[in-house]
Amino acid sequence: MNGAESLVRTLLATGIDTCFANPGTSEMHFVAALDRFPAMRCILGLHETVVTGAADGYGRIAEKPAATLLHLGPGLANGLANLHNARRARSPIVNIIGDHATYHVAYDAPLASDIVSLAKPMSHWVHSSPDSRQIAGDAARAVQAARTAPGQIASLILPADTAWGEADGPADALPIPAPSLPDTDAIAEAVRWLRSGRKVGLLIGDRALMEDGLSLAGRIVAHTGAELLAPTSVRRIQRGAGRVGLDRVPYPVDMAVKRLAHLEALILVGAAAPVAFFAYPGKPSTLAPPDAAIIPVAAPGDDLIAALTALAEATGALATPVPVRPYTPTAAPTGPITPDTAAAAVAATLPDDAIIADEGLTSSRAMAPQTADTHPHDWIQITGGAIGCGMPLALGASIAAPGRPVLCLQADGSGLYSLQALWTMAREATPVVVLIFNNRAYRILQGEMTNVGVQNPGRVFTDLFQLDRPTIDWVLLARGFGVPGERVETAEALTTALARGFASRGPYLVEALI
Amino acid sequence: MNGAESLVRTLLATGIDTCFANPGTSEMHFVAALDRFPAMRCILGLHETVVTGAADGYGRIAEKPAATLLHLGPGLANGLANLHNARRARSPIVNIIGDHATYHVAYDAPLASDIVSLAKPMSHWVHSSPDSRQIAGDAARAVQAARTAPGQIASLILPADTAWGEADGPADALPIPAPSLPDTDAIAEAVRWLRSGRKVGLLIGDRALMEDGLSLAGRIVAHTGAELLAPTSVRRIQRGAGRVGLDRVPYPVDMAVKRLAHLEALILVGAAAPVAFFAYPGKPSTLAPPDAAIIPVAAPGDDLIAALTALAEATGALATPVPVRPYTPTAAPTGPITPDTAAAAVAATLPDDAIIADEGLTSSRAMAPQTADTHPHDWIQITGGAIGCGMPLALGASIAAPGRPVLCLQADGSGLYSLQALWTMAREATPVVVLIFNNRAYRILQGEMTNVGVQNPGRVFTDLFQLDRPTIDWVLLARGFGVPGERVETAEALTTALARGFASRGPYLVEALI
Repeated sequence: MNGAESLVRTLLATGIDTCFANPGTSEMHFVAALDRFPAMRCILGLHETVVTGAADGYGRIAEKPAATLLHLGPGLANGLANLHNARRARSPIVNIIGDHATYHVAYDAPLASDIVSLAKPMSHWVHSSPDSRQIAGDAARAVQAARTAPGQIASLILPADTAWGEADGPADALPIPAPSLPDTDAIAEAVRWLRSGRKVGLLIGDRALMEDGLSLAGRIVAHTGAELLAPTSVRRIQRGAGRVGLDRVPYPVDMAVKRLAHLEALILVGAAAPVAFFAYPGKPSTLAPPDAAIIPVAAPGDDLIAALTALAEATGALATPVPVRPYTPTAAPTGPITPDTAAAAVAATLPDDAIIADEGLTSSRAMAPQTADTHPHDWIQITGGAIGCGMPLALGASIAAPGRPVLCLQADGSGLYSLQALWTMAREATPVVVLIFNNRAYRILQGEMTNVGVQNPGRVFTDLFQLDRPTIDWVLLARGFGVPGERVETAEALTTALARGFASRGPYLVEALI
Repeated sequence: MNGAESLVRTLLATGIDTCFANPGTSEMHFVAALDRFPAMRCILGLHETVVTGAADGYGRIAEKPAATLLHLGPGLANGLANLHNARRARSPIVNIIGDHATYHVAYDAPLASDIVSLAKPMSHWVHSSPDSRQIAGDAARAVQAARTAPGQIASLILPADTAWGEADGPADALPIPAPSLPDTDAIAEAVRWLRSGRKVGLLIGDRALMEDGLSLAGRIVAHTGAELLAPTSVRRIQRGAGRVGLDRVPYPVDMAVKRLAHLEALILVGAAAPVAFFAYPGKPSTLAPPDAAIIPVAAPGDDLIAALTALAEATGALATPVPVRPYTPTAAPTGPITPDTAAAAVAATLPDDAIIADEGLTSSRAMAPQTADTHPHDWIQITGGAIGCGMPLALGASIAAPGRPVLCLQADGSGLYSLQALWTMAREATPVVVLIFNNRAYRILQGEMTNVGVQNPGRVFTDLFQLDRPTIDWVLLARGFGVPGERVETAEALTTALARGFASRGPYLVEALI
């Protein structure tokens, strides 16, 4: 058995059975090993940003890592932006990055580069395996790192001779560290605040946004009168009818500061204190009121259910009924496509148990409130601000949950970063409806331009922020990649098109002019 | 004046007047400064791989740096693959990479990452400018680094408050170091070999492949009987009728070893000793015969004209006529499209003074010999093995040389890495004909599979190396981005389509099924 086979068998032994890939020559022995083990599903992306973004979506829905297969430094580099989002989402991913044979490094061949330096900023764990007899053990350590709560990016570099040299056999799975228990002093302080009758926010994140955490948190706020909040960007929320609803901290700094201004204390369970996405002259970096008490009860990756259970018990909230959202049908909207009518069209057509992958940005701003009472669904979204994650996330989510309908809410400018994901959707016949909001601009940047005080934008602003010279035809792009679709210009047509897309049970693109 | 304005004015003062860009919020003040100085041409790419690849093509043709504008770590990461190629091509580029305001870094906002670690592997010079009064001087140093022969990648990180804070004014250009003179001992040894009557190769690279260097080298080999060679991957060759022709070292290891096997000495002028692109079990890393003398006369960036002049003088070759290629018309080819007929179609239609940007890979293998005697042209190509450079290179070359026709030879698999370049070609109305070789496979990897000894490829090899499930329609993709085009399936139709494309004076895509 060579190193590559020992690696594949170790991955399978540690529960990894999906590999998003774009390999090259230096990974050829690893591909040959994959070829001998059909239990590992291999999915090709036409660009590494599709590969890593899909692994992120997969990790968020499957709650376990996929592997990626990347070709040396440039292949990794192409995937870094979506690894950045995955790192911020705390998704578990095991990257396998091919490298030159160890003895070939001295010759500085054209594709050589410092892979460790490239991998570190977007990885929690990086290791280059020096020897074919060590790769199996290194792979077990990589999987252990990726599976360590709250989920980590593990990057394992595989020199070609480590793959083709002799190995002893696969390695066993290593134990995953148990999550830390919450801090009892912090719990006591949080309970004092929750019982105080004062204005308290309970900000929950990470896995507390899954149904069981939300139910506990919902009881606590129903019983104590606190407010339930989620961070601006979240890895995954389980929401819709029958679940506890909650507000997210708004993205614009002024709105976020205003939203939190009345709070006297902010209790953190699986979330950090909210900070501004960007700095702006004269605006604060932190969003909570400067004199509010910040009580970090549990960090992401801690035992958040234990933390919420402790808070619920100590406040006497465990017997309180869970305040779930009702199911409220949404009427099909009419008129032009706006963020509001688009959200209504989504609420009116979303199938039960869907997954929404949201990179709609400015066009998605009405989605959360308008879909709060529709059928229950999972919501995943852009977390790190690296644009181009929407369609790859949707692809990976669909691979992780084959039976479920997926809706991708995709801003046009961001979608152009990773449109190649459409081809993999066609190839894998994933039931993903991609709703492109085509406003023919980087609309969010036009807003930011005003935020930083630009009054009379000139030619350069128009050239850099408008995408209408020439206009882009998303239906043609989708067809070029084998995905059917249609363009719509009214809310009625949008509703019909979404319904048609969900009924198609395959990938379908709806280009909405907004 | 703020830091951003002092930076823009410094770039203009140091001769940089073109900026390939994809900015975001943290670069807004820099964009506002660009907006006030119309002498700086700003060109938007829909993905940073277009931005950096275009800067590479621009640098190779303009012989001076363009600036790029990139959005924090993920924006840089998206551009790294083509920066890798640019680094290997020794292109001059000045990257301006926006970052969070210095005081905002402490909050680990979602888009924060270690930009220096990301930039280093693909940069010769990296600096984060800490203060708005220092940015102008830092920019002058960045330009100096980029312009230092043989051309360098300079990455200047611009925190948002460095852009918006007060500055004193622009900085002046700094002196560019003179290139080193060649080593006189090495020249003497090279001359002994050239006069020896033995089998000697003269391997020239970097700027020795421009017309003046080639003329000197051509005289030397005509006079001495040595063989003239170029590296496998080159930044730029001036070639065609009226110029000196030369062979490149082949890409496949076995062919390269065979090509060089008879040589007793290899003289290097602006080139390194040839090494294998990849390591393969049982094959060598170095390509010249182990017992051949290697004589490094001048490195890339040294004064290569001085080196070649010294060799020509000492061998008495200066009076020898330059052995230039004749102009030989090529008959329009007939039959199916193959690498040979495709090359004949190109040779038959290429306009005078064109630029060829070559990422045709396996489909381009007949191009060099068949176009050796056509109209004079510049040839630029993939250098670092990071796929996806072809169309961005063509775009940047066209921006650098507005009047000249450009032909992009583009393999389909690689072209899918950066198809967004088509949109910028449409927007800027660049006269670029993009010839897509659609073999519906990663053909080069199918060859490499055999090279590493895979005998009976199974499902995974098919899934990862074939691009025909579904087939990709490049004409639709081009139209989606506003570029007209057509699909051809015969050599006759290909020749007609290329002629139509060149006559259109704008971007035109020809999808050749091969």
